[in-house]
Amino acid sequence: MRALFFDGELKLVNDYPEPAQAAGESIVAVSLAGICGTDREILRGYMGYRGVPGHEFAGRVTHSDDPSMIGARVVGEINAGCGDCDACRAQLQRHCRRRTVLGILGRDGAFAERLSLPDANLHRLPDTVSDEAAVMVEPIAAAGEILDQVELPTGGGVLILGDGRLAAIVAMVLSGAGYAVAVAGRHREKLARIAALDRAHGRIVVYLDGADERRTDRYRIVIDCTGNSAGFTRALELVEPRGTIVLKSTAAAGAALNLAPVVINEITVVGSRCGRFAPAIEWLAAGRFDPRPLIDGVYPLDESRAAFAAAAESPKFKILLRPA
Amino acid sequence: MRALFFDGELKLVNDYPEPAQAAGESIVAVSLAGICGTDREILRGYMGYRGVPGHEFAGRVTHSDDPSMIGARVVGEINAGCGDCDACRAQLQRHCRRRTVLGILGRDGAFAERLSLPDANLHRLPDTVSDEAAVMVEPIAAAGEILDQVELPTGGGVLILGDGRLAAIVAMVLSGAGYAVAVAGRHREKLARIAALDRAHGRIVVYLDGADERRTDRYRIVIDCTGNSAGFTRALELVEPRGTIVLKSTAAAGAALNLAPVVINEITVVGSRCGRFAPAIEWLAAGRFDPRPLIDGVYPLDESRAAFAAAAESPKFKILLRPA
Repeated sequence: MRALFFDGELKLVNDYPEPAQAAGESIVAVSLAGICGTDREILRGYMGYRGVPGHEFAGRVTHSDDPSMIGARVVGEINAGCGDCDACRAQLQRHCRRRTVLGILGRDGAFAERLSLPDANLHRLPDTVSDEAAVMVEPIAAAGEILDQVELPTGGGVLILGDGRLAAIVAMVLSGAGYAVAVAGRHREKLARIAALDRAHGRIVVYLDGADERRTDRYRIVIDCTGNSAGFTRALELVEPRGTIVLKSTAAAGAALNLAPVVINEITVVGSRCGRFAPAIEWLAAGRFDPRPLIDGVYPLDESRAAFAAAAESPKFKILLRPA
Repeated sequence: MRALFFDGELKLVNDYPEPAQAAGESIVAVSLAGICGTDREILRGYMGYRGVPGHEFAGRVTHSDDPSMIGARVVGEINAGCGDCDACRAQLQRHCRRRTVLGILGRDGAFAERLSLPDANLHRLPDTVSDEAAVMVEPIAAAGEILDQVELPTGGGVLILGDGRLAAIVAMVLSGAGYAVAVAGRHREKLARIAALDRAHGRIVVYLDGADERRTDRYRIVIDCTGNSAGFTRALELVEPRGTIVLKSTAAAGAALNLAPVVINEITVVGSRCGRFAPAIEWLAAGRFDPRPLIDGVYPLDESRAAFAAAAESPKFKILLRPA
């Protein structure tokens, strides 16, 4: 099959081995795959990953031990646990120490014609949810994880720091859940697009960070979606004493950080990663928000270089690959 | 009056100006003052402080607008708020942005014959609580803050990282509250002294960190009392996925830290600083624990050099100054 393979550089392989269908796993033909910040970090060496990247996808089951699954349109949770440890027994496969992670750790990913995942990871899609929306279930679920971890104040007090694709999806999910959020970024065009995601309710207020010196607001909750380690330092400046910083992005390398303000101002820092797929699919089915305005291009696998270049361009948000 | 004054170096001044008794403040004659890690950091330049250090004390009121206070034995909370902002109105003077902090920020401290604090900061001591115990109310309250911030598991799962004076006080307070705690450090003698603090109940288990390679336990809660930035990295290795790290110490400088594990393992980091004095005094009055075995020496002000040298020695825990 055709696949993008990374071993220090990303290349298209036309005769990549088909994924093996292990016991309890299904083979999924990938309809669409999304490029996310983690993929771009992997191409810079994050996690030392070698294999097929890609972990955001929508597809159709072609092989399964469960006949009822064949032909089903699905999305899939990306962490596959060992099934046998405390974490797995607590349904926390994503924290299993022996886990594989689709396109990130020990398991080939979605930038290929087909992939394999445990049946338990797959979620059927309602007909009303298009592939273009479904391919964003993974980042929507990751944004929804914030709602599971932190009690957000209603009526303001929540700041999203950053104006990239992650910030956009977090703003969309939180405003869709009824919360008023401010988004602070450095790019006027991106901020305008983010504000437009909730034009109907006007729950997203955006501003250029650093441009208005009079702005001295502090926020109960600051969600760092910048994707760089400077974001954490800025978040420390913008959070109220005794407030909470939610860290949504993994920086590729360590930076010099001073944690003294965390202690002095008694800040809580909450690391937040993947989330539950079921509510994300329900939100899309219910039309709570529409992620499709975030899509800025769909590329075939043999144009991956152009696709990754586009994914790095401002004010682009979401670039998709169509493997088949 | 006699005072230790710091302006890049610490020196004894015999005719230091008496503290002014501002409206609503009382003058306290210092009986005993404790040297803590923050004082040693201040002497290395932390906070750029210039003045009389010292914030742990027990003393007796000599001047007050409130006649009932005169002669009272007291300890005092160290943060003095402006009284007029949102934080102060919420009784969170310690997070007032215009606050002064005894011996740390804009207010002369306890390494002197007398100090001044707002009446509202002072707490009367029961006769049953000695000066030697009372001088540790501030760090005991700071340790007690953990009980206010984090829900601790009973029956284990709590690790205190470090074996210095802060670790010892945290171990004493948490075991005194009924929690079983493990303490991991690098100094056999200090660890033995910490274990002895709760010999009656045996709730404190100690071990040499790194010495036993078979040890692979992870903990639901890791309390970093190391006082250095390497402690945070070690805490990340020892905390369970979805667990909590409590940061109790301010490192003097920023170090290269990789926050990616916070996100990947969805760790919560809680900054924890000062705590409430009233429960700390109650615990001492009730004999819940006895901090006096931690005292390793009492020095007059003119032996401050020897006192600070002793405070840096292992396995010493608590060095006191007696100003009068």
